[in-house]
Amino acid sequence: MFENRVFNFSAGPSMLPETVLEQAQKELLNYQGSGMSILEMSHRSKVYDAVIVAAEAELRRVMNIPENYKVLFLQGGATLQFAAVAMNLMTKNGKADYIVTGSFSKKAAKEAKKYGDVHIAGSTESENFCRIPRQSELDLRPDADYVHICFNNTIYGTHWDYIPETGNVPLVADMSSCILSEEVDVSKFGLIYAGAQKNMAPAGLTIVIVREDLIGNAMPTTPVVMDYKELADANSMYNTPPTFPIYIAKLVCEWIASIGGIKALNVINVRKAKALYDFLDGSKLFKNTVSPESRSLMNVTFKTGDEALDAKFVKEAAEVGLLTLKGHRAVGGMRASIYNAVPEEGVMKLIEFMKEFEQAN
Amino acid sequence: MFENRVFNFSAGPSMLPETVLEQAQKELLNYQGSGMSILEMSHRSKVYDAVIVAAEAELRRVMNIPENYKVLFLQGGATLQFAAVAMNLMTKNGKADYIVTGSFSKKAAKEAKKYGDVHIAGSTESENFCRIPRQSELDLRPDADYVHICFNNTIYGTHWDYIPETGNVPLVADMSSCILSEEVDVSKFGLIYAGAQKNMAPAGLTIVIVREDLIGNAMPTTPVVMDYKELADANSMYNTPPTFPIYIAKLVCEWIASIGGIKALNVINVRKAKALYDFLDGSKLFKNTVSPESRSLMNVTFKTGDEALDAKFVKEAAEVGLLTLKGHRAVGGMRASIYNAVPEEGVMKLIEFMKEFEQAN
Repeated sequence: MFENRVFNFSAGPSMLPETVLEQAQKELLNYQGSGMSILEMSHRSKVYDAVIVAAEAELRRVMNIPENYKVLFLQGGATLQFAAVAMNLMTKNGKADYIVTGSFSKKAAKEAKKYGDVHIAGSTESENFCRIPRQSELDLRPDADYVHICFNNTIYGTHWDYIPETGNVPLVADMSSCILSEEVDVSKFGLIYAGAQKNMAPAGLTIVIVREDLIGNAMPTTPVVMDYKELADANSMYNTPPTFPIYIAKLVCEWIASIGGIKALNVINVRKAKALYDFLDGSKLFKNTVSPESRSLMNVTFKTGDEALDAKFVKEAAEVGLLTLKGHRAVGGMRASIYNAVPEEGVMKLIEFMKEFEQAN
Repeated sequence: MFENRVFNFSAGPSMLPETVLEQAQKELLNYQGSGMSILEMSHRSKVYDAVIVAAEAELRRVMNIPENYKVLFLQGGATLQFAAVAMNLMTKNGKADYIVTGSFSKKAAKEAKKYGDVHIAGSTESENFCRIPRQSELDLRPDADYVHICFNNTIYGTHWDYIPETGNVPLVADMSSCILSEEVDVSKFGLIYAGAQKNMAPAGLTIVIVREDLIGNAMPTTPVVMDYKELADANSMYNTPPTFPIYIAKLVCEWIASIGGIKALNVINVRKAKALYDFLDGSKLFKNTVSPESRSLMNVTFKTGDEALDAKFVKEAAEVGLLTLKGHRAVGGMRASIYNAVPEEGVMKLIEFMKEFEQAN
């Protein structure tokens, strides 16, 4: 750990690997002998082209992305993709099914309604999003242009424990808060998108992984930098891409590869989450209210049931270097986001502190 | 100058002030004692909030932005604004006038046509965009919802030497390649937008400065993160903003203030450009073909008339540390982008090298 470094449990932007930060710092004034900073470099220069090509290659390698998928490096966040997905894909029958499992999937459905016939094919809102609906609960339309899910729900701390069966209808998943944290069979999805600021890069980069046959049918009113065909044809360089976050994403993917890939990382992620959930399940003070099968590996929510005590916990945790533990206002309580770059030591320190706090309160 | 640093004449992304790069490097691992990198910080944290608030305050100060204008920090580049401007503003009479003075204003007009009645109110395309049209040449409609111009044309090296009179019709200007380079009376414009990667910050940040009365009339199909009302109401935090480029923009504005503001910077910019144009006007080998009144301070285009010789020049210049001088493929020849952060010494070194090259060839 760097001197004076804290454990930062932010839901995003969030911790980056120390080796990545160190390399970025080291070469910030002069990137690999180019005489310029990576921040100053033309995105069309040879030296930068090698960066974006490597970023894509590394991402394809760690995620095992099939060849018939395009990888796009974009701006605008997952929220811009809420509209882009609909404008690009809801163009065959003009209808799409959305499964609502939290705030972001609800926003995605609301946004898509601007562009076509949106059907809520499943929702656990009446249960305060404490679980992911089962396949048998889903009311999917066979003629939908796609089915949309949010694979990991940052605010509620839930995660799909299965990939829903959608027949011939392409499955679209927002993976902003779980991308790179677990092995995923990309071929089961028509399109995966993710804001990179949680598990991959600093804010300002959005990844879209889209099956080639879904490209090329955007609505005529689609802004050109939201049209997957234009973006794919230009290799993410229709206009200037977010060059620095792409560079960091490359370093992050290299870091993942260096420690054994997503498979090895997932073993650590499971261990981190299990330690925290095990403690919560045995605690008399702290509770996690998510159905066990739907628990997220990345975002662990908990509360004492007493708002003043929750606030005291967040404050005292910050004093010992455990930061950004306040839960989202929609849920209250606490949330520990334990993404790939949060060290296991941080989770252990959090559990120790929770034990002490429980004894003292 | 840092050791081994080159002079980089890239059209964008482009040089940043050395003091800005040094500060960013120095505090990259631990931002102001927070124990975390600026790259890892929640955009909703107190420490980051101070950054974005200061960035806006500094920008307002250096540009002297009136109080009845909102400042938005966005993603997507100027190209996303080509659509956003139309979707937000072309909603009263459904028509807008575009003046075409280069590739980007042409693209902006093409994009706006997706959303309404676009009239080309002036164009110098038949003269290969070598000049800005005069007021008397403009064919403006009194009932247009706005008039759109590109204030500085990066590719052709031209710049509006006057602000067109548009009566009661709001004037919208793309200032991507001249923002912060000269004093501008913001009150003459309804909306100013700029991709920040030329004169302000690394790639991934777009600035919109919009008069308040123009906010709130977006088309129902506008993506939520392109709706100025949603963005203004959320203080640019409807979703995660590009936190790092905003931080650099703050440092760049502080740097501008520290050297006397835009007025003082413009004196240097005029001196830099004049030295280069004076040399070009006296040269027998190199020619600039822009009408004198329309010459850009930021992007200086020139050519020898011999493509092989142009290529030789670009290659040999790079060998002595004068980089990215190749002109855009639409124009050919050479282009020296001499933004705020390109030191005067770099321009002098370029002129010296051009003299030597002229004597030798």
